[in-house]
Amino acid sequence: MIIKTLDESVSSADLVITTGGLGPTNDDITKQTLREYFGGAYREDPLAMEYIRKLCERRGLPFTERNRFQAMVPESCSTLRNRSGSAPGMLFRKDGVIIVSLPGVSFEMKDILDRELIPLLKKEVKLPVQLHRTILTCGDAESVAADKLAGFETDLPPHAGLAYLPSPGILRLRISLTGTDKAQLSGQLKEMTDAICRIMGEDHVFGFDEDTLPSVLGRMLTLRHASLALAESCTGGTLAQMITSIPGASAYLKGSVTAYANEIKEEVLRVSHESIQEHGAVSKPVVEQMAQGVQKLMGADFSIATSGIAGPDGGSEEKPVGTIWIAVAWPDGVKAEKFMFGDNRERNILRASFTALNMLRNIISEKGQNSE
Amino acid sequence: MIIKTLDESVSSADLVITTGGLGPTNDDITKQTLREYFGGAYREDPLAMEYIRKLCERRGLPFTERNRFQAMVPESCSTLRNRSGSAPGMLFRKDGVIIVSLPGVSFEMKDILDRELIPLLKKEVKLPVQLHRTILTCGDAESVAADKLAGFETDLPPHAGLAYLPSPGILRLRISLTGTDKAQLSGQLKEMTDAICRIMGEDHVFGFDEDTLPSVLGRMLTLRHASLALAESCTGGTLAQMITSIPGASAYLKGSVTAYANEIKEEVLRVSHESIQEHGAVSKPVVEQMAQGVQKLMGADFSIATSGIAGPDGGSEEKPVGTIWIAVAWPDGVKAEKFMFGDNRERNILRASFTALNMLRNIISEKGQNSE
Repeated sequence: MIIKTLDESVSSADLVITTGGLGPTNDDITKQTLREYFGGAYREDPLAMEYIRKLCERRGLPFTERNRFQAMVPESCSTLRNRSGSAPGMLFRKDGVIIVSLPGVSFEMKDILDRELIPLLKKEVKLPVQLHRTILTCGDAESVAADKLAGFETDLPPHAGLAYLPSPGILRLRISLTGTDKAQLSGQLKEMTDAICRIMGEDHVFGFDEDTLPSVLGRMLTLRHASLALAESCTGGTLAQMITSIPGASAYLKGSVTAYANEIKEEVLRVSHESIQEHGAVSKPVVEQMAQGVQKLMGADFSIATSGIAGPDGGSEEKPVGTIWIAVAWPDGVKAEKFMFGDNRERNILRASFTALNMLRNIISEKGQNSE
Repeated sequence: MIIKTLDESVSSADLVITTGGLGPTNDDITKQTLREYFGGAYREDPLAMEYIRKLCERRGLPFTERNRFQAMVPESCSTLRNRSGSAPGMLFRKDGVIIVSLPGVSFEMKDILDRELIPLLKKEVKLPVQLHRTILTCGDAESVAADKLAGFETDLPPHAGLAYLPSPGILRLRISLTGTDKAQLSGQLKEMTDAICRIMGEDHVFGFDEDTLPSVLGRMLTLRHASLALAESCTGGTLAQMITSIPGASAYLKGSVTAYANEIKEEVLRVSHESIQEHGAVSKPVVEQMAQGVQKLMGADFSIATSGIAGPDGGSEEKPVGTIWIAVAWPDGVKAEKFMFGDNRERNILRASFTALNMLRNIISEKGQNSE
């Protein structure tokens, strides 16, 4: 099947990329099949051999025949360096077609693609100039954004495209421009980006391209030498996980309390027993006290708190699944807002988390300007 | 391009599935193209219309023309119900070929696939019997597992296959059997599953198929009416996020403290200042005190603590990036273990989290048996 598919692909494309089947186990047969297809013997790839030896050493594992074979490649290929795994990428050429084999482990594949294959192809292949800019937004559903942008889209010239890329809590808007004059396209891209930012609004647009809400917040907090603490109920650690996914988060994150049980809200975060009795854990007074409680407990400048019904259970007539309260506290105040999300637990948690981070972003922007 | 690809696919396959392009915005042109390709007018899909009306109502959004068009489909198709989004799946038939169009949003696509398309295809298409069983393990690298299983693999009959499916911290082993006699295959699958479990070891095998470490732990804790608390440093909320991803986690999770700053380790978790000074935050005494501190703070039966250097910065000669201490506390004891992982922050956090959950699983199993 692999050989038949290779034959078909080579006869219909200029570039063929395969992924997977390069691991050390018996179900991995891509390398053996490529050697058969392109002919010749195996040769050792010195960078891969070094990587595997170091890996075995570091983990205290013996260096076996199985490991040695991972560093062998068909002699008819050139290799693409794999910095995060043992199987190098392989590049073959046949009748003017480039055939590339990459590992199937996604982070290894992406790294080789970004750092080895794409730079190599850019040198060899001439393509029209294509520029992209992705505007990152939080707070508008796809259909709401489409209505806001309807006029802008109608006016777009034929060489421009706008793509809507939604995921729970985040809507990415990607402009693409194709042409020949790079300088001219760059100018147009900037104008269109500015227009989209104006239409969507500062409170919704949080960044561009590779930015994320946690990375943007990290920069804002670092710049202000400000610290952050988190009190999570319904988001259950996801906010902390997002914030700490950024290297160097220890510079501004003091810590986080996931207060799942009401007794933890009371004893650790000092939420009043009466507020929980009177209003329930999913309420404005409780979420505000959670935010101010963790802010005080950890001596932080800013804090976020979440309390809601993520689902699938726990909903009621008055507070259905998807009801989420979010509070943000700053050095001299606190603000809470209620949101109604959907009925899927995973997506409710993600939407609540991103919405909370965006609320903090807007409050830091406001408070930062006021104090200057 | 879509029409050309449809032509090629229909002439070479029995089933064609397309994804994406069904959204409400101007870059979504799949539905329009399918109507053009298969001919006829649009008709309203009543289930989609109801879904969209309810969605708008719930979110307090107006019901617009754009929304109405989302519930329209070409009259030549039958629809596949979308329970988690507004665009229904569409199924067309042409010259004995089935052509299906699904939304590109992954959770919508998967849900329609699982609940609508696959059951429908199973009724229509006769295939050989194929049985699968996935054994879930934590603790062995892919190449180590392959060496352990080398003899087992050699003895596998030709109609059986073993696939190694690695991801950071977790290795899934999938057995596949193909044949005609379902009862016989079932018996063989059970024997092979048991053999793999014996070879890999109880301390490594944590479940099967759709199980996850958090779901397995959830069942174990619920069964024992036991509670859990978490103290996270290097895993930064990921443990809490994993535990709370399971609906009903509030039955056993008291809460979690992400103690990123040392002062939080001291003040909230009551880790001794001297221990941090003498041994550093990434050390056996500190991680043990974190586990026992959060256990006491939250009045929990069991607790987990993590402290390590996730990277990319913060490593030293003595404690390089990837050094992670994990402790588990039970009602009358605590145990800590040191692990050496790699140099990638994201993967270190995942591996540390899964390893910690598996340590807790083994300790609950042990202590549970001892006390009976």
